[in-house]
Amino acid sequence: MKQRTISIALLGHGTVGRSVYRIIQENHDRFVENIRQRTGQTVDPQIIGVLVSDLKKHSELGAIATTDPTRLLEQDVDILIELIGGQSPATELMTKALSSGIDVVSANKQAIFSSQGKLEKIARDHHVSFHYEAAVAGAIPILRSVKSLVSGRITKIEGILNGSTNYILTQVAQGVSLDKALQQASDRGFLEADPSSDVDGFDAMYKLGILTYLATGRYPGEDDIERVGITGLSPDEIEQAGLADKKYKLIASADFETGRYSIKPVALESDHDLYRVDGALNGISLWHEHAGGLFFQGAGAGGDETASAVVGDLIDAICLRILRCQHD
Amino acid sequence: MKQRTISIALLGHGTVGRSVYRIIQENHDRFVENIRQRTGQTVDPQIIGVLVSDLKKHSELGAIATTDPTRLLEQDVDILIELIGGQSPATELMTKALSSGIDVVSANKQAIFSSQGKLEKIARDHHVSFHYEAAVAGAIPILRSVKSLVSGRITKIEGILNGSTNYILTQVAQGVSLDKALQQASDRGFLEADPSSDVDGFDAMYKLGILTYLATGRYPGEDDIERVGITGLSPDEIEQAGLADKKYKLIASADFETGRYSIKPVALESDHDLYRVDGALNGISLWHEHAGGLFFQGAGAGGDETASAVVGDLIDAICLRILRCQHD
Repeated sequence: MKQRTISIALLGHGTVGRSVYRIIQENHDRFVENIRQRTGQTVDPQIIGVLVSDLKKHSELGAIATTDPTRLLEQDVDILIELIGGQSPATELMTKALSSGIDVVSANKQAIFSSQGKLEKIARDHHVSFHYEAAVAGAIPILRSVKSLVSGRITKIEGILNGSTNYILTQVAQGVSLDKALQQASDRGFLEADPSSDVDGFDAMYKLGILTYLATGRYPGEDDIERVGITGLSPDEIEQAGLADKKYKLIASADFETGRYSIKPVALESDHDLYRVDGALNGISLWHEHAGGLFFQGAGAGGDETASAVVGDLIDAICLRILRCQHD
Repeated sequence: MKQRTISIALLGHGTVGRSVYRIIQENHDRFVENIRQRTGQTVDPQIIGVLVSDLKKHSELGAIATTDPTRLLEQDVDILIELIGGQSPATELMTKALSSGIDVVSANKQAIFSSQGKLEKIARDHHVSFHYEAAVAGAIPILRSVKSLVSGRITKIEGILNGSTNYILTQVAQGVSLDKALQQASDRGFLEADPSSDVDGFDAMYKLGILTYLATGRYPGEDDIERVGITGLSPDEIEQAGLADKKYKLIASADFETGRYSIKPVALESDHDLYRVDGALNGISLWHEHAGGLFFQGAGAGGDETASAVVGDLIDAICLRILRCQHD
């Protein structure tokens, strides 16, 4: 019997895109078996196209590479994995895909922060699924955890959601100058193309907004979130904190009972759960009316680490697609 | 238009059962809306029966209370929530339900440890779902996190999976005698009816076995898990550990690369992730070939805390049931 093919289109072939591509190729049989266990159906997931910026730079992909997203989406695509980042054209491409009955997996915090409710609604209206675990806190399965806490209200979330500023602050606490730590973060590929997204707190703000929407169904607008970056911290403040056994961290905080949202550097005491979240790690504490306090820690960035979350979503999307159609 | 009723049967009305019952009653509209958002369908979840041990003790339940599980399952049940614990008759009742097309949510670590593969297979064969997040680490969404790490191999899991022994060891480290700490744990309702399940490591062994099956698809048999309880620890050993800034914890460990499994007291150094998991808390570290290291912490027991995980599973089960039937 010919197996049904699940056709996957991949937008983007940078650090995360390459990891996703490689992991899908290397683990094909593992995924087929996992999907069979969960749905009873045997299918054949295949990447049928990869959107790249320059064909010459990605010649190893052969004929499936393309620079034309519109033509890519005109093929018979089941699942779109969006990893190009930024607001446009990612938002338009996700909108088009969802409206055409294609399930979407994305790691794009900026586009999702801006259009989360709209994209969720389009997905619902077209009976497809929309997943974006990788957009917040990299490898930490925080979004699926928040979604599972449906029994009652989440009252508060507090986290280190930006790995690059956490790396920088960890270096500075160890005596490195802020300028040098910034340079080191840049050299190690930890900073976004526009470093302001990280050091001025935009990246953490997007992620806090996404978490807030999932936790409460409401959006904090950009203007409702107090946002202070790390560049205003003086070497003296950081040194004084260290002498008092404290550490400065860029803390994203949402208190759903008071409606106060902020991204700002906070000098944490040594008994705080987030005090030990050092280097490029992310950490999240949350409080729930029934579950009590929960704490999560893990890699906030990195190719394979982020790809782990993308692939988890991909397999969920495939399984839901199969279950939806099982009785067709 | 008359809404479709989702009929829920609840087995057990102890600490967790009461919380589950109350939370379902109090949050009916929230759940209806959550299910509508996720499936596009409006349904009416209702508890149609509760299995109790003594009708007189649960008279507040009125006509839906019963002592006869067979008659309860003969009604038109969609979802069974099994909270009676122990191997029998829980295993037989879950088997019967799954075989009859009923989705099952359970918090029963002992029954699942013994029959996980069999019950999973029955669920698959009958196209129903089987959820048991609450069986391991209470409120921590660890099973759904492990399931999502499908991109590659989990190489190691290490955790504090038994809250009562952790409470006892935390008390003892603060100078309380072992006998007195055991008594305190019992007074606070932290110990199982048979304390041996906790202090001799059986409870942690069940949970480690369940995690192992989900992570690898394989079972460690009871004989493959080295199991040492906490009663053999001498006051002197605990005091010496404290003087060296270490803490004894009952550590459940599974190394999937060497195939070594153990439950035993370990004196942790102060920089260990699990060192700060005190009192009745649970904590889990795991390592994954792509995601790297992940750490989770939260309440390992408690009525509302465990109910939070049960209800998360319940809503998943309802949504999957609706999606499966959407095209019927």
